[in-house]
Amino acid sequence: MQTVNKTVRAMTEPLPIATAEREKLARDLTTIVGKEAVLWKTYDLKLYEYDGSIEKHMPDAVVFPTTTAQVAQLVKYCNREKLYYTARGAGTGLSGGAIPIKGGVLIAFTRMNRILKVDPENLRAVVEPGVINLHLSDAVAPYGLYFVPDPSSQKACTLGGNVGENSGGPHTLLYGVTTNHTLGLEVVTPDGEIRHFGGNAPDSPGYDLCGLFVGSEGTLGLITKITLKLTPLPPAVKTFLAIYDSVEKCSNTVSSIIQQGVIPAALEMMDHMMIGAIEAATQVGYPTTTKAVLLIECEGFPPALEQQAKAIEEVCRKEGVLEFRTAKDEAEREALWKVRKGAFGAVGRMSSDYYVVDGVVPRSKLPAVLAAIGQISKKYGLAIANVFHAGDGNLHPLIMFDSNKPSELEKTLKAGEEIIKLCAEVGGTLSGEHGVGLEKRDMMCFIFNEGELAIMRLVRAAFDTEGLCNPEKLLPTPGRCSETHLQTDGKAKDKYVRPEIGEVW
Amino acid sequence: MQTVNKTVRAMTEPLPIATAEREKLARDLTTIVGKEAVLWKTYDLKLYEYDGSIEKHMPDAVVFPTTTAQVAQLVKYCNREKLYYTARGAGTGLSGGAIPIKGGVLIAFTRMNRILKVDPENLRAVVEPGVINLHLSDAVAPYGLYFVPDPSSQKACTLGGNVGENSGGPHTLLYGVTTNHTLGLEVVTPDGEIRHFGGNAPDSPGYDLCGLFVGSEGTLGLITKITLKLTPLPPAVKTFLAIYDSVEKCSNTVSSIIQQGVIPAALEMMDHMMIGAIEAATQVGYPTTTKAVLLIECEGFPPALEQQAKAIEEVCRKEGVLEFRTAKDEAEREALWKVRKGAFGAVGRMSSDYYVVDGVVPRSKLPAVLAAIGQISKKYGLAIANVFHAGDGNLHPLIMFDSNKPSELEKTLKAGEEIIKLCAEVGGTLSGEHGVGLEKRDMMCFIFNEGELAIMRLVRAAFDTEGLCNPEKLLPTPGRCSETHLQTDGKAKDKYVRPEIGEVW
Repeated sequence: MQTVNKTVRAMTEPLPIATAEREKLARDLTTIVGKEAVLWKTYDLKLYEYDGSIEKHMPDAVVFPTTTAQVAQLVKYCNREKLYYTARGAGTGLSGGAIPIKGGVLIAFTRMNRILKVDPENLRAVVEPGVINLHLSDAVAPYGLYFVPDPSSQKACTLGGNVGENSGGPHTLLYGVTTNHTLGLEVVTPDGEIRHFGGNAPDSPGYDLCGLFVGSEGTLGLITKITLKLTPLPPAVKTFLAIYDSVEKCSNTVSSIIQQGVIPAALEMMDHMMIGAIEAATQVGYPTTTKAVLLIECEGFPPALEQQAKAIEEVCRKEGVLEFRTAKDEAEREALWKVRKGAFGAVGRMSSDYYVVDGVVPRSKLPAVLAAIGQISKKYGLAIANVFHAGDGNLHPLIMFDSNKPSELEKTLKAGEEIIKLCAEVGGTLSGEHGVGLEKRDMMCFIFNEGELAIMRLVRAAFDTEGLCNPEKLLPTPGRCSETHLQTDGKAKDKYVRPEIGEVW
Repeated sequence: MQTVNKTVRAMTEPLPIATAEREKLARDLTTIVGKEAVLWKTYDLKLYEYDGSIEKHMPDAVVFPTTTAQVAQLVKYCNREKLYYTARGAGTGLSGGAIPIKGGVLIAFTRMNRILKVDPENLRAVVEPGVINLHLSDAVAPYGLYFVPDPSSQKACTLGGNVGENSGGPHTLLYGVTTNHTLGLEVVTPDGEIRHFGGNAPDSPGYDLCGLFVGSEGTLGLITKITLKLTPLPPAVKTFLAIYDSVEKCSNTVSSIIQQGVIPAALEMMDHMMIGAIEAATQVGYPTTTKAVLLIECEGFPPALEQQAKAIEEVCRKEGVLEFRTAKDEAEREALWKVRKGAFGAVGRMSSDYYVVDGVVPRSKLPAVLAAIGQISKKYGLAIANVFHAGDGNLHPLIMFDSNKPSELEKTLKAGEEIIKLCAEVGGTLSGEHGVGLEKRDMMCFIFNEGELAIMRLVRAAFDTEGLCNPEKLLPTPGRCSETHLQTDGKAKDKYVRPEIGEVW
């Protein structure tokens, strides 16, 4: 076993482990988690070679631990045998965080899915990492509480994955992303020990290792328990749809609303192309001159909501809204949201394949960046629909392509990279919520210099001394950045100049 | 120079540097920052040997850089000469973070005090670390904005210090502490290079080094620029005072209010002893049976405020409030706050010395913990007044003592440590906002085990490879924890058992 896996580690393309060796691996793992909790046959493993990204790679075994002690034993075993290991939640991630890219053991947390404690008095919950995001909100609803971060995949994705990726969602504009709701973690660090980071207080003494762990994409260890902050359900909600005949007017509205001091709970924008896709799928009945729409949701006490509604409508009118609709009841509200939540599906109807880009730009740069994305669409001859968290400046361009056409995927990825570079250049960043994973590992060079990446590598090594925990993710290999900067069309290119920190937005 | 400082490094008590050597040091530093920006004579240095804590130690020189480039040169110089260096803001810190405990160069940021950019459209500001907290809020007020974290020292303390200590304040209950408002940092890392961490987006890709830096108490490098989030000023504010004849009723109200889903902007509690001190100083006119009071402040649109006010009054009545006062205008509001903000001063009138303890407990444990603090007060024969951020469970017991009485300071520190241990034991933590610094370095053992501290040491080493940056702060020396656990009365004691992560609050 040891020899085989040492070979695996040394190669870029790991050799497939022979069946006999996999059988031994399975037997070893069975002694830790029991035989109902190990998969090792190729047809089983095939189901675990992908996540929501375009990458794939088969693990050598999949295990389903049910206790922290088992997770610790698994990590110690992997260390002893020099086996790579990678954590997996629901596999809904979009950047490849759960892909066992060098094989080894895939540790699936699906069976560690208990809500261990709900403490309504202190607005806290303790959960295992495999709990599905929406299940927590459902469980605490009787107490008038919910868990704020609501990624589009919230019916399927796990809280462990949310913490790993520092997930966002439409409603994180007002209340912040997952890191703002994660107070404490029990983790198994790569030395196989059980550690506790953070706590229940708003600020924890010492280095904020809990905060460091959130968004570390499974590279610093395995999360086994999470203490989360719960939030009181809003007393009332008001939802609006603002329809525009110009993208510019629509994106100007976004800045104007925020600048007014009225921060909505959600502020979602969809462009012309996306509206076309939605109309084709559901016939919502937008005016034919529609070029962009804003979905706006406010929360609070009813009388204040009326006032906010008035303020928002005024801003929209001032920016030249074509039509301003208010959801009159819960049914109308759900109809408005259904359109937003069905956006990806609507694109799926229009195009055999699509690639979701995730980038962030300053709100004030939205009009310019959306225009530039239009140029990129023309340049590559690929339709791009935009639906995104406008309040956060978090873009989600959906590039439509046909994987059956030769080199169309390649072209798509190039267009995606160009969009991300654009985001970085205007002072934004390369991921809003989907993570870096495998997808954007080399793009880290757009925003960090070699010295900053070197510190990140040392931080990683502080946890993962063996280098076996979720390998190849998040950080480019040393020197990769200087290559990237010289890569375009084989011609030497100026080193990418990152906007200075003074360039605020 | 080199030899002297190598000796200094090796000793626990550093040797004083001879005047001739200090002169050379001053000459060297002058070439970097100019002669108007270097202090080296003993009577000047004496002014910089302390901060707001009880520790003190004289630096060998104080410098006042005005640019990031100068800071980088200073760090490189210190590395070359093997000199310790420590950052200082306004010196208001309460845990000794700015004390140059092993001598060396004290880098004071007082002259890097420019607000570099205010971007109201995107709710951002970029500042130098020496900007005073309140000055930023004053500067952005014309845009209808403010900077949320409001430590009691906000008229004096610097934003660089706030970031270093992850400061809180009465108004961070609703909006979060400094880390929730810090988006990006320019820092000089201990290798003397200028680095950028974080950015402008709500989530930054890669490890959250910006978040890691916040609260690292100056041990990971020197902050030279900060990108901060600004917040729209609340449209209206309502302030209440709830007076109780029982501490228990009062602290039960705290949990009940939060549980109701009404999260006030501030929720401050003062106990019997503190009220006595305040009455003696300002004759506010509390009923004679007063045992505890709550100062409650809500923000929002006026109609919603009325509703919140009603909800809060109802909760207070249900929990048996003696008297419920509402500030009718700004003058009355200021009068209520003046009492809270003058609390420390009022204690200063009653006692020649006092020691502020900073600990956090679950809100639901407030009644029990306040009772236990009463027991500790009796045990040591020291009066203890409580004034604190009740909403966060962030206690500030003020232990009154007389430093002229033999061993009274020692007794006070012991009582303080006992309170902190109590906080840790009920599932709280050892600092809410004042930091660890020198004061609580060894108390880190109460909440972290040796393995967790070892990871923190490696994280520190990822930044500070030379070990010269703000030495001796934050982390206990290895092995210190096992000593601490065995220390009480020379008798072997059970290892401190930290509450499990499941113990939520």
